[in-house]
Amino acid sequence: MKQWLKSKTIPKLCYKYYSTSKVIEVENVVRKRIFSGIQPTGSIHLGNYLGAIAQWVKFQEQGQDVIVSIADLHSMTVPPHDPKELSKNIQEIAATLLGCGIDPRKTILFQQSTVAVHTQLSWCLGCICTMPRLSHLPQYKEKSKDLKDIPLGLFIYPVLQAADVLAYKATHVPVGEDQVQQIQLCQDLARMFNKRFGETFPIPQTVITGSEFARLRSLRDPNKKMSKSDPDPKSRICVTDKPDDIVRNIKKAVTDFTSEVTYDPDKRPGVSNLINIHSFVTNKSVADICREAKNLDTGKYKLVVAEAVVEYLKPIQSKISNYLENPQYLVDVLEEGREKAEEIALKSWIEVEEKLGLKIKVPTKKHMKLNV
Amino acid sequence: MKQWLKSKTIPKLCYKYYSTSKVIEVENVVRKRIFSGIQPTGSIHLGNYLGAIAQWVKFQEQGQDVIVSIADLHSMTVPPHDPKELSKNIQEIAATLLGCGIDPRKTILFQQSTVAVHTQLSWCLGCICTMPRLSHLPQYKEKSKDLKDIPLGLFIYPVLQAADVLAYKATHVPVGEDQVQQIQLCQDLARMFNKRFGETFPIPQTVITGSEFARLRSLRDPNKKMSKSDPDPKSRICVTDKPDDIVRNIKKAVTDFTSEVTYDPDKRPGVSNLINIHSFVTNKSVADICREAKNLDTGKYKLVVAEAVVEYLKPIQSKISNYLENPQYLVDVLEEGREKAEEIALKSWIEVEEKLGLKIKVPTKKHMKLNV
Repeated sequence: MKQWLKSKTIPKLCYKYYSTSKVIEVENVVRKRIFSGIQPTGSIHLGNYLGAIAQWVKFQEQGQDVIVSIADLHSMTVPPHDPKELSKNIQEIAATLLGCGIDPRKTILFQQSTVAVHTQLSWCLGCICTMPRLSHLPQYKEKSKDLKDIPLGLFIYPVLQAADVLAYKATHVPVGEDQVQQIQLCQDLARMFNKRFGETFPIPQTVITGSEFARLRSLRDPNKKMSKSDPDPKSRICVTDKPDDIVRNIKKAVTDFTSEVTYDPDKRPGVSNLINIHSFVTNKSVADICREAKNLDTGKYKLVVAEAVVEYLKPIQSKISNYLENPQYLVDVLEEGREKAEEIALKSWIEVEEKLGLKIKVPTKKHMKLNV
Repeated sequence: MKQWLKSKTIPKLCYKYYSTSKVIEVENVVRKRIFSGIQPTGSIHLGNYLGAIAQWVKFQEQGQDVIVSIADLHSMTVPPHDPKELSKNIQEIAATLLGCGIDPRKTILFQQSTVAVHTQLSWCLGCICTMPRLSHLPQYKEKSKDLKDIPLGLFIYPVLQAADVLAYKATHVPVGEDQVQQIQLCQDLARMFNKRFGETFPIPQTVITGSEFARLRSLRDPNKKMSKSDPDPKSRICVTDKPDDIVRNIKKAVTDFTSEVTYDPDKRPGVSNLINIHSFVTNKSVADICREAKNLDTGKYKLVVAEAVVEYLKPIQSKISNYLENPQYLVDVLEEGREKAEEIALKSWIEVEEKLGLKIKVPTKKHMKLNV
């Protein structure tokens, strides 16, 4: 096997594989570079945890190159933002990510705003991106439809997101289904850049975190996704919720009129959602869970699930509080992450500067001494 | 006089003066910080030189803080840009600025793309700026009206321009009349930022380079400004034009049917334009020039002007060629400028990070050791 197949970074010669659709074929032999971002906007619920963070931890433990960015610049796109709240949220998300198993010795964990290449590259990509392309993105249309004075940040958000990914020449981007079109923009911009200025960026592949966990349902309405924007806090379980709240919210979870515990996400989304949560936190199969719950009605089963969730979250919560009590430690971890992230991103930026003609060319011949 | 009135940098306490309309009153006692940018897009003509560069040199020689940015990121806003051309243009503009008298020991001369704070701050300003505000700017309307797929860069250009100025907490921005509305946006963004996040930026004042030189006329049509976008190269004199071309273009300059040499910019814009150029390059008053040219017709007078321009440009052109032959010297000058510019801009950025809540707050109490 060639040396570069073993190395963690992907050498230049190999990029061509990434910029064609053949990536799928070589996926098994070439190491991935996985980039993800998470906005520091309040508490993390089980949907975020199971659907995203737990996946990143899995990739991390598989030995993949994983880069996780705390996307603070993105969280400013819908004003007014409260600086005190943002600062607290950055601290909380850092503590939560570490508490959930992100290991800064294995994964690069950093704060987006501390690596300037993101906005530098974003500017350059903005110069090859067109206004109509951005205005057709569904998430922009959705988020801007009720706003009178649309903030520019909301409009140019996906360009920064593309820069986030491309700055690290990421090959894989795990996202929820609602982000697929934004990643398509990122792919398009990478292709356009490569075509105009020469092969530079691998075309990142979307990884739909395709398990049932990615689509955890609201406890109040199983037809909706569990979401932090739901006004009813009883609709979700947050990673930092107190045991009493977890038990109460799961006890009140909406199921249906059948008292048996059976798994059928289409017809019985409420109870199936609880089984999914249960399966994740106990690492038991759905079949085993259903067999064990044969003699329980959904009411009693909810208590079993609640207890399992409380037990599962206990060590995580303890770590999170420990981290939260030590902001200096979090600052140090993020600073170390910044250094590692910046090292990679700067390499990309230097290449981009060359490709775009931002460097004065100095011929290699010996220069005469200037006499002015 | 208080110490800060003497110092070159403006201490924090003094900003309040700048963010009110009282700036005019304190202008005479507080040292200005003057920021200007110039796009690296081809040759510099006498209009640029007399109207902008010569003014910067004047400020520089007055001992003001002058910062001149080679706005390479701005020059990418209308694609497609040619990287080879851009690289060459950066080199040429650097050589030209030095040749025209910008002294890197007195003025901070640097390349915009090399100081990341510009795009970082631009992102943050973009989050408080609205889409309608940008779409109403006349220059955007003018430049985008014939484009089908408007590039995003063209739209967000004025936000980066605002960041350029605010990153250095510039107090004065010399601009042409066509830029006034862009600087108004910059002032608005500074006021909005200060109001939302606390006093941070002085409100920069527009300095209209208010001499007749700022409005040098086209040699082919005195009703139009001398412009590098004019398709007829005979309409302008470039700083690097060969003597023969200068003589030819001035000989062919459109004047009128009166043969006397008199100064009347409204009724005789053609000959008055030549007198303005003549006055600048010889440092003679308009009255002296007219007196000396009493016995000349405009045809003969053109030869006098042409000779004076050739003589004036000769040492400048010699310096420019010398610089152009030494790209490494230019790289070194710009690198030194980058260091100085970055030092100032990073101070602003650290303050912005604090104000926006991008920093985790670490209490000053002694931290317990983390045990995880």
